[in-house]
Amino acid sequence: MADATRSYRIAVDCMGGDKGPGEVVMGAAKALRDIASSDRLILVGKEKGLRALAQRAGLAGHPQIEIRNADDVVGMEDKPMQVLKSKREASMLIALEMVKKGEADAMFSTGNTKVLVGAGTVKLRPMEGTDRPALAAIMPHAFGHFVLMDVGANPESTPTHLAHNAIMGTIYAQAALGIAKPRVGLLTVGTEEGKGNERIKHAHAILKKLGSEINYVGPVEGFDMFDGSLDVVVADGFTGNVLLKTVEGMFTMLIRMIKKRIGWNPVSWLGALTMFPIMNSIKHHLRPDRNGGAPLLGLSGLVMKAHGSSNRHAIRGAIRLGREALSHDMTARMGAALVRANEILETADD
Amino acid sequence: MADATRSYRIAVDCMGGDKGPGEVVMGAAKALRDIASSDRLILVGKEKGLRALAQRAGLAGHPQIEIRNADDVVGMEDKPMQVLKSKREASMLIALEMVKKGEADAMFSTGNTKVLVGAGTVKLRPMEGTDRPALAAIMPHAFGHFVLMDVGANPESTPTHLAHNAIMGTIYAQAALGIAKPRVGLLTVGTEEGKGNERIKHAHAILKKLGSEINYVGPVEGFDMFDGSLDVVVADGFTGNVLLKTVEGMFTMLIRMIKKRIGWNPVSWLGALTMFPIMNSIKHHLRPDRNGGAPLLGLSGLVMKAHGSSNRHAIRGAIRLGREALSHDMTARMGAALVRANEILETADD
Repeated sequence: MADATRSYRIAVDCMGGDKGPGEVVMGAAKALRDIASSDRLILVGKEKGLRALAQRAGLAGHPQIEIRNADDVVGMEDKPMQVLKSKREASMLIALEMVKKGEADAMFSTGNTKVLVGAGTVKLRPMEGTDRPALAAIMPHAFGHFVLMDVGANPESTPTHLAHNAIMGTIYAQAALGIAKPRVGLLTVGTEEGKGNERIKHAHAILKKLGSEINYVGPVEGFDMFDGSLDVVVADGFTGNVLLKTVEGMFTMLIRMIKKRIGWNPVSWLGALTMFPIMNSIKHHLRPDRNGGAPLLGLSGLVMKAHGSSNRHAIRGAIRLGREALSHDMTARMGAALVRANEILETADD
Repeated sequence: MADATRSYRIAVDCMGGDKGPGEVVMGAAKALRDIASSDRLILVGKEKGLRALAQRAGLAGHPQIEIRNADDVVGMEDKPMQVLKSKREASMLIALEMVKKGEADAMFSTGNTKVLVGAGTVKLRPMEGTDRPALAAIMPHAFGHFVLMDVGANPESTPTHLAHNAIMGTIYAQAALGIAKPRVGLLTVGTEEGKGNERIKHAHAILKKLGSEINYVGPVEGFDMFDGSLDVVVADGFTGNVLLKTVEGMFTMLIRMIKKRIGWNPVSWLGALTMFPIMNSIKHHLRPDRNGGAPLLGLSGLVMKAHGSSNRHAIRGAIRLGREALSHDMTARMGAALVRANEILETADD
């Protein structure tokens, strides 16, 4: 399915991240190493500032870099509808508009998630067969990675949304993790049939009906996520977002606890030094930098989101993931899979 | 409020744990070190077996140990209503009945959570002012511990249930963690007003109305839980249970990753040895053993639940926590706080 001969254009919203546009431009510069030489990155934001930042990043006159002016910026407190009405010149909206018009194949942003989800849905429209997009994150397990979705686009997910998450997560795990038949689990509070809440019971029934469309292993619990037995974990946008941030918080706590206990004790320092490669390898495995991007799945165009606090490495990772998704023709495959799934569910209904 | 002169009787359901009644009896034997010499533990289960196990644990003829026969056992697949109808001689039901009749001040069980919640609610009835109990767990943060609730009793919590969780969590944090004015956060997906789902928005409005009844700091996110800024984190029973198990799963994954990477490399072994006290101290802080019990709050009697896989140390911890709650007169204080809160909310309603 991958089309190696095509080249792609990615619109990079440089505004709205916590670390400022300079960090995004540095991330884009690094991302040039991962993409094909015929691909283009289009930096979107205040042109004058971006030119200076691009020069500083060694990108002046670079054949793969373009700059597109945007006079306005989406703030962290902005609401989607208000932005759509009164901030039409915001960099995020212009980048979305470029995808809509076919001037870009995908867009990337570190900005306000709520506005990105809302404005993305209005500008790019949900794919046929679904009505709400979902955010997918790549999370670490003991031996590799899995896809968790939804991590926050839709905090009121219905059972049907959960089933769509399972399908979209499957296609994303194929594209981003290279897994042929991703094992899909439905996150709940007890794996016996009939446990969980009403939403989960209903979603479980739908997922069973999908048969061989997905590799559904059944309901799973929180501790099943990290033992390497799952490739896609399906959750509603509320639980998924809380989980993502809990894992983040726990990781920070552990680093803090280790540092505090090492303190100034020379024996502990010796131990810490000899353990350093191990700890570093674990940190590398757990840190979201490499897989910093969360695509907003279920829209007719590809939207990549990275955390507002992303550094250049996380931004590079997100752009690389976006390019990967494009070369797998992920959006079209997802659309086809959703249509097939909806047909099965309609036929199964009595 | 604590009544040092009173002595207490705790009914210990010895059946239904994953490790068998022997482990529970060993836990009870260890718990004798924590309770007052006038307190009693009543072991509930198959009398003959328990007598043999008690003898092996050095408890034969111990003045603080009694045995109460129960011919039946609640299984992991049993459903609450079915148990209430056809397993009246189950140890869990008999222990609950003892609390109901005043023959015990509290009961402890490692058995089937769903049956304990269901049968506990029917036997002991919810306190005045609430209609559903909630499970509270003690979780580690970087510098100490906090109360997370509900961790699974009520997967369909309403906004009012969340407000009751905040009140009961406050009283529990006072009794179990010794914190005078516990800081309460409402777990959600974004801390700005208007974020989260409808349930959270409504719960936030109720919690603000409670004024000085609780020390409510506002909506919080997953990563806020571990930095030591909160003493009580309020969640619905679905999210709370998923969280509890995620933290458990992540912890197991980390241990596994460290062990795998240490492998047979002698330098890493040296590092691991010198780091051992640090890792052990962290493990000790994070492991739920010491605080293994989760009380089922909101019933008119005290019910302590421990994980089915609990070892003797976790069981000892849960019994100790139960005794602590009794000497703080926790159940009565909780009932009074709920009544006060409901009065405030009724007056506040237009």
